[in-house]
Amino acid sequence: MKELQKEAIIEALRALQQDICRKLEAADGEGQFREDRWERPGGGGGFARVIEGRHIEKGGVNFSAVHGVMPEKISKVLQLEPGDFLATGVSIVLHPKSPKVPIIHMNVRYFEMGSGQWWFGGGIDLTPHYVVPEDARYFHQQLKAVCDAHHPGFYPEFKKWADDYFYLKHRRETRGIGGIFFDRLNTDSRGMSKAALFDYVLAVGNTFAPTYIHLLEQHKNEAYGERELQWQGLRRGRYVEFNLVWDKGTKFGLDTDGRTESILMSLPPIARWEYDHQPEEGSEEARTLGYLRKDIDWTDVRFADESSSF
Amino acid sequence: MKELQKEAIIEALRALQQDICRKLEAADGEGQFREDRWERPGGGGGFARVIEGRHIEKGGVNFSAVHGVMPEKISKVLQLEPGDFLATGVSIVLHPKSPKVPIIHMNVRYFEMGSGQWWFGGGIDLTPHYVVPEDARYFHQQLKAVCDAHHPGFYPEFKKWADDYFYLKHRRETRGIGGIFFDRLNTDSRGMSKAALFDYVLAVGNTFAPTYIHLLEQHKNEAYGERELQWQGLRRGRYVEFNLVWDKGTKFGLDTDGRTESILMSLPPIARWEYDHQPEEGSEEARTLGYLRKDIDWTDVRFADESSSF
Repeated sequence: MKELQKEAIIEALRALQQDICRKLEAADGEGQFREDRWERPGGGGGFARVIEGRHIEKGGVNFSAVHGVMPEKISKVLQLEPGDFLATGVSIVLHPKSPKVPIIHMNVRYFEMGSGQWWFGGGIDLTPHYVVPEDARYFHQQLKAVCDAHHPGFYPEFKKWADDYFYLKHRRETRGIGGIFFDRLNTDSRGMSKAALFDYVLAVGNTFAPTYIHLLEQHKNEAYGERELQWQGLRRGRYVEFNLVWDKGTKFGLDTDGRTESILMSLPPIARWEYDHQPEEGSEEARTLGYLRKDIDWTDVRFADESSSF
Repeated sequence: MKELQKEAIIEALRALQQDICRKLEAADGEGQFREDRWERPGGGGGFARVIEGRHIEKGGVNFSAVHGVMPEKISKVLQLEPGDFLATGVSIVLHPKSPKVPIIHMNVRYFEMGSGQWWFGGGIDLTPHYVVPEDARYFHQQLKAVCDAHHPGFYPEFKKWADDYFYLKHRRETRGIGGIFFDRLNTDSRGMSKAALFDYVLAVGNTFAPTYIHLLEQHKNEAYGERELQWQGLRRGRYVEFNLVWDKGTKFGLDTDGRTESILMSLPPIARWEYDHQPEEGSEEARTLGYLRKDIDWTDVRFADESSSF
């Protein structure tokens, strides 16, 4: 069997970006993606796509494929020998207008060194402004299904990884209800072929649009008012805190002279901070805070429901 | 002469907090500080003071004095031998309601180890939403005067330090028009006594209120509209980026289990992000961006004015 070539990976990821954008435009019904092409002085570049729509207030669906001599700063952080590299991926964050619709993030990526070393990484995680256990169950069941179809060990491992990764240590809160996160996925770790691993990664990418659009359809017409918008602002503030303080990808990008506008596309259009804000006891907002912790088995909604009583 | 005792420093800094709060309340004319007392499990604590007023939309004036066994994480970052420590200081950020009034930050602090090692640190810097060269000159002249009264080398050194410190590398922008910044100030570096150094630090603290109130008075009644508010939101977004990505104090606090609500009091009530925002050529907003760079000699307004033509 012919080995999977990097050109095929790049092409498939660019096609994934285009497919997701088409589906999101259709779901939004009004917004259209604007595309900015950019080039990296050291080699390669990307296509940044942004939407401001009727339901998606601010969304970015980025594709990039950068290559060249790896800057020393990067090889140091990644603990790699210096040399040539290729990094390609699709990265998405959508901030919906309605506080009843969740924020979502997705990323799939491939990394390769001139020396032949390579791996895949990626993940999807959901950040509802208001946690709805049935939605969380649906979301995790979708992820579990795509994981299980490729390897029975993927979902449990990558679900835990997401819980640990999307965590605001200074708030003792998870960013949202988690999802899956994985990195340095290669043939060494599972005995799966490169093509089989890429199938999985693409399947994760292809799960994104239908899963999110389902949640959008469910909630896009729900009523909300000033109270929910205020809360959305505060939750978006937490999203900013996670991305700027803890997210390794953002830090890495800003530190290594990445394209700032693409990296910070993940930030919400507007965010709020209020000193020592405490939601009213027993309120929907307090219930959501109660759900923002690790190790909830969202695929079992009975358990998830019980967890709100702690 | 009796050596300056740490109790005297703590007392003077707490009095400075109270004095500044009184003056800010008088200048605001409406807002009153609320005080939260908090304790640190390992020893010491603080008084967090916050105001939401007529002119100051969100302001924090914090005092803290924490002590105990220094956590290993802290001794590592500070490159110190483990042991007992004391850290005390006053820390201020004010976000005014009007985009025509600048954001300001001030900090004065004292650090001491059980081993006898000690130093002072601090700084003031100004972040106008719209840079007005005459204001910048006034602000820097005030700082230069207080510095020059204590040591002729202070202003040039600490002004440059502020330019380098309050810098958003990923935007190639300074946070505002700078000010002064200093750290690890002790008798070794200047041959000044501890008491003389503390006189300087207190003088910096005492310069804060009259200097800021002068700028507030100058601009608080100026007209502004939706356009200026949008721009203020974007500039506040940059303030968030600096504090969460680059500010060593914030990072250190969040990393070492500091009191999150006190540390993040520096964040604005509301902030905005817009993908690839570019102000119109020749606009006031574009002119402000032109001023956000290092090494402008703001005490010489002729030079500052010329710099806008680059």
